[in-house]
Amino acid sequence: MLEGLLFESFVAMGTIAFAMSGAFKAIRHEFDVLGLLVLGFSTALGGGLIRDALLHRTPAAFIDDGPAVYALIGCAITMLSHRLSRKHVFGLTDPNSRAFLFLDAIGLAAFTVMGASAGAASGLNAFGIVMLAALTGVGGGMIRDVLAGETPLVLKEDFYATATIIGAIIFFAMYRLSFAMATVTAASFMVTLLLRLLAIQYRWQLPKPKL
Amino acid sequence: MLEGLLFESFVAMGTIAFAMSGAFKAIRHEFDVLGLLVLGFSTALGGGLIRDALLHRTPAAFIDDGPAVYALIGCAITMLSHRLSRKHVFGLTDPNSRAFLFLDAIGLAAFTVMGASAGAASGLNAFGIVMLAALTGVGGGMIRDVLAGETPLVLKEDFYATATIIGAIIFFAMYRLSFAMATVTAASFMVTLLLRLLAIQYRWQLPKPKL
Amino acid sequence: MLEGLLFESFVAMGTIAFAMSGAFKAIRHEFDVLGLLVLGFSTALGGGLIRDALLHRTPAAFIDDGPAVYALIGCAITMLSHRLSRKHVFGLTDPNSRAFLFLDAIGLAAFTVMGASAGAASGLNAFGIVMLAALTGVGGGMIRDVLAGETPLVLKEDFYATATIIGAIIFFAMYRLSFAMATVTAASFMVTLLLRLLAIQYRWQLPKPKL
Repeated sequence: MLEGLLFESFVAMGTIAFAMSGAFKAIRHEFDVLGLLVLGFSTALGGGLIRDALLHRTPAAFIDDGPAVYALIGCAITMLSHRLSRKHVFGLTDPNSRAFLFLDAIGLAAFTVMGASAGAASGLNAFGIVMLAALTGVGGGMIRDVLAGETPLVLKEDFYATATIIGAIIFFAMYRLSFAMATVTAASFMVTLLLRLLAIQYRWQLPKPKL
Repeated sequence: MLEGLLFESFVAMGTIAFAMSGAFKAIRHEFDVLGLLVLGFSTALGGGLIRDALLHRTPAAFIDDGPAVYALIGCAITMLSHRLSRKHVFGLTDPNSRAFLFLDAIGLAAFTVMGASAGAASGLNAFGIVMLAALTGVGGGMIRDVLAGETPLVLKEDFYATATIIGAIIFFAMYRLSFAMATVTAASFMVTLLLRLLAIQYRWQLPKPKL
Repeated sequence: MLEGLLFESFVAMGTIAFAMSGAFKAIRHEFDVLGLLVLGFSTALGGGLIRDALLHRTPAAFIDDGPAVYALIGCAITMLSHRLSRKHVFGLTDPNSRAFLFLDAIGLAAFTVMGASAGAASGLNAFGIVMLAALTGVGGGMIRDVLAGETPLVLKEDFYATATIIGAIIFFAMYRLSFAMATVTAASFMVTLLLRLLAIQYRWQLPKPKL
């Protein structure tokens, strides 16, 4: 019960953080207010929409009002902080600030676990579970970057999607070894979050194959 | 009955207009004939495909032959008018002409209503209904722009998707207030069309948040 | 039985070739190792994922382990050949070599037949069958190009998707004329492969409409 509420609040934080990162990118690209909303909502909810389309489920955000409300809050925070003060609110609206990156990392970990458990519930294989976790975690950000005319950041640098993938592999392995679902969820969440925070702290990068 | 035929003809007009805008963009980008067809069909049918994937319905265009035929007509008009005369046919094949913009606005309004009513029929919440209306109305155009390597126009300027969204909100509100479906449909269609035409006439733009 | 094994091996070859083309593009764009895997897997499996989402089926690659394993093999071949020797292995890892183009053409033909038969099994119309064949055959490559920030190659030049479309039309026509499924499959596969090989040999191009 309590864990459920805790996890729900992590998802909410993540949705808000993802929406803010989309909204911020829209402002930098001089999109209008609608473009800001589209980019914010795409980043926050796009990964989940793709996941649900692949699992032929009606998108959760189309039934439950929570996700859309959180996405709207994220867009509103970024837009208002820029329109009113043109300053960052406690650094939270600056996508490079520590505070924002921490919020974003919590979101990444929560979305990873959501995607992986949706895959497990549908009886998918290892690839399906990892893929759904990754799509839920970073799919929204990839849509954001493509719509903004940029190469998706996760493809070029940063230890971001990698944290998701390792977290999802942990999820799959523990799930197959029949650990209790609460343990699987908690471990996968924690590993993803920890890896992402370490990656921020120590500026981890993946190697690039040279041509 | 008569309204059904009228609405069907609006959808046909819209499909043709959307296909023409895709085909025109393909010519401007020097795509080959296949690229022209792909861009035309994507613009005309892409929004509906996404909507149906999200609602886990078999795409309407894969069952009913109408949409594909209309899309083909739109591509053929643009291609032939450019190949034969290299002049615009009554201004209709020039995407900036009044005649084209009017046709396109009718399509936008018809597609909006189709998306919103599909969402309502699936019992979705306000966000789901508005999102499906917007995806049906402008999703094809966004695919067109991304495939052509451009930032989707609706994100940057113009009062286009906004007309869709306001029309969809009208739809949702009247639907929840239990108006007759024919009234809901007609009102939403009219509001979307009117807003779009006013936007063209008075060159409405949404404000852009400044960084 | 034997035909089934033969076809399965064509699909495997195609999946490996598609993954290699994605991985190669990732290296050329200086993506990191994760980006290479994402681009390789998207190219190899993306078309099938879109097809299955449109048919509201659980993606085949999420149930059967084969596709993901083949995609991984393709990524590994490209990555290792570049990391270890920085030379092409028998020309196979050079996307412009004859050997690679041949492998890729087999994949294109096999994917085309898979998409068309999935559409036929779902009772779709001509447009649905051709569209699913084309999405399965070239959808992955289009995702690859969009993610890499390029205009999808198939839209601009080359007789590539056209081979798929003609092969799918053959499939549809023979299927409607009630030929045995094995004959339909073999004929469609052969036509697609032959057209693609002729196109490579004689550098066929589609005409481009001029503005």
